[in-house]
Amino acid sequence: MANSKLAQQSETSNSNEASTREIVVLRWGHRPQRDVRLTTHVALAARAFGASGFILSDTFDEHLKASVEKVTKSWGGSFRFEMGTPWKTALADWKAKGGTVVHLTIYGENVESSDALSRKRTSGKDVLLLVGSQKVPPEFYSAEVSDFNVAVGNQPHSECAAVAVFLDRFFEGKELAKGFGNAKVRVVGQVRGKKIEVDRRF
Amino acid sequence: MANSKLAQQSETSNSNEASTREIVVLRWGHRPQRDVRLTTHVALAARAFGASGFILSDTFDEHLKASVEKVTKSWGGSFRFEMGTPWKTALADWKAKGGTVVHLTIYGENVESSDALSRKRTSGKDVLLLVGSQKVPPEFYSAEVSDFNVAVGNQPHSECAAVAVFLDRFFEGKELAKGFGNAKVRVVGQVRGKKIEVDRRF
Repeated sequence: MANSKLAQQSETSNSNEASTREIVVLRWGHRPQRDVRLTTHVALAARAFGASGFILSDTFDEHLKASVEKVTKSWGGSFRFEMGTPWKTALADWKAKGGTVVHLTIYGENVESSDALSRKRTSGKDVLLLVGSQKVPPEFYSAEVSDFNVAVGNQPHSECAAVAVFLDRFFEGKELAKGFGNAKVRVVGQVRGKKIEVDRRF
Repeated sequence: MANSKLAQQSETSNSNEASTREIVVLRWGHRPQRDVRLTTHVALAARAFGASGFILSDTFDEHLKASVEKVTKSWGGSFRFEMGTPWKTALADWKAKGGTVVHLTIYGENVESSDALSRKRTSGKDVLLLVGSQKVPPEFYSAEVSDFNVAVGNQPHSECAAVAVFLDRFFEGKELAKGFGNAKVRVVGQVRGKKIEVDRRF
């Protein structure tokens, strides 16, 4: 079984840090074609809100990959996209390098009213953020898989919203003010109208 | 031209308050069928993160309406769904009752690095949260339409993520701990596993 490249890269980049350096989003249960727009939104939200990579587990979707990589190429940064890795492999690799696993689920501890997020922070480990769909394997809730089961509210909404809000809270909002290196295209926020800067070097 | 019911209801419920009582999300540019899943996610995120209603402007989508109302019926609360109202009518009604309009756009003032959110808070008015798609009419950026153009980050991601994070920040996270009245189904968040309570009275 092939190892997860993202887990291995993370191990290297992380060896000198005691605190959380990175979050990688693992999307389980994607159905090619049917889910391509939603999963693209999840991946782009992951990138925009500070995750360093995205694993589309157990399946391949070249169209999705192309959409996400096109955004990264234009808008900068080094967001990594991986697909096809079995979720058990990605998880085992992540745990082997000392990372922690947060499973986002409506059934978990409420991110607002519980202390799940601060307990996670105290652990200081890198996070694999496991995002499923309506029917995830029951073992996702077990201690063998998830270190934390976190609910971004206990109401039904959207995996895209859940990923974005979890990351926004985790990084305490700072991720939205950070720039992306090597960007061909950059928006300069305005009170009115649109301003785009294009860097022809990239 | 029919008035927007949501704007009128809001006026009544608001007459004794000096501060923001409610946020209604207006979704512009929905394409029935093609966008139904994404817009459903936007509407459910609006509900879960504390908005009191949703206007699908300028078009009708019975499938979307049924999905959103089914969730509200089971999971409680009084989230209001309206469709078909022309955006100009909804906007005029909102402004006529003293509400403010926040347009979510990648080109706007960054919600993290600007003071747009605190300026909005100071205004104390109810908010119509205008969410477009890739190509909105240029007048959305004008002072006649939007009081604030706010970017939930200046990177491309998802209208669903943008709505969720804007509301989470606006309500300072408190919306995720609030219960919904008259709920048939309720999740009790758990460290492990799933717990659902069903109230047979509703």
